[in-house]
Amino acid sequence: MDTVTLAKKRAFASTLNKVPLFESERLLFDLYCLRPGQAQRVHRHDDADKVYVVAEGEALFEVGGEQELLPEGTAVIARAGESHGVRNESTSNVVLLVAMAPRPR
Amino acid sequence: MDTVTLAKKRAFASTLNKVPLFESERLLFDLYCLRPGQAQRVHRHDDADKVYVVAEGEALFEVGGEQELLPEGTAVIARAGESHGVRNESTSNVVLLVAMAPRPR
Repeated sequence: MDTVTLAKKRAFASTLNKVPLFESERLLFDLYCLRPGQAQRVHRHDDADKVYVVAEGEALFEVGGEQELLPEGTAVIARAGESHGVRNESTSNVVLLVAMAPRPR
Repeated sequence: MDTVTLAKKRAFASTLNKVPLFESERLLFDLYCLRPGQAQRVHRHDDADKVYVVAEGEALFEVGGEQELLPEGTAVIARAGESHGVRNESTSNVVLLVAMAPRPR
């Protein structure tokens, strides 16, 4: 069975660390690990939706031009064509579960 | 911004409760809430992948004919064509985050 233990995959780096958990042509399922100050710049995908779940900490999201600080236990969707990004503006680490479908070509 | 608070969506019913969080043609993102003894029967999707994340409790998964008890903080993928199901055989509630891509037609 193809399983992963999230705690074993949680790892930080000198910039936002995208840790792949599962991948297929239909979806990407990643863990994003952000130290304080780290960010994913605002960008967009014309043909893919992305769901973020805040698994640890709180992060400042920007989706479709709106900004919101989302705490642990919150999820947000950036639909195809919507600009989106996330920044850890806190003083603690942030861990996000991120599902994207389909995998960008 | 299209956000959800998972704790507010957590709700149990007389059978497994599938709570939709986000939906598009590209993906379904749900919360599955299972009381002790509740289950999702083994089934398969020929054209969609499904990722389960155990957010609370521990559940017995069957994927591709294999069975494994997965604790909180574990994720598992059932790829297109793989039979899969889950049962709460514990004495505590189980909550799963479930991403499926694409949405079945």
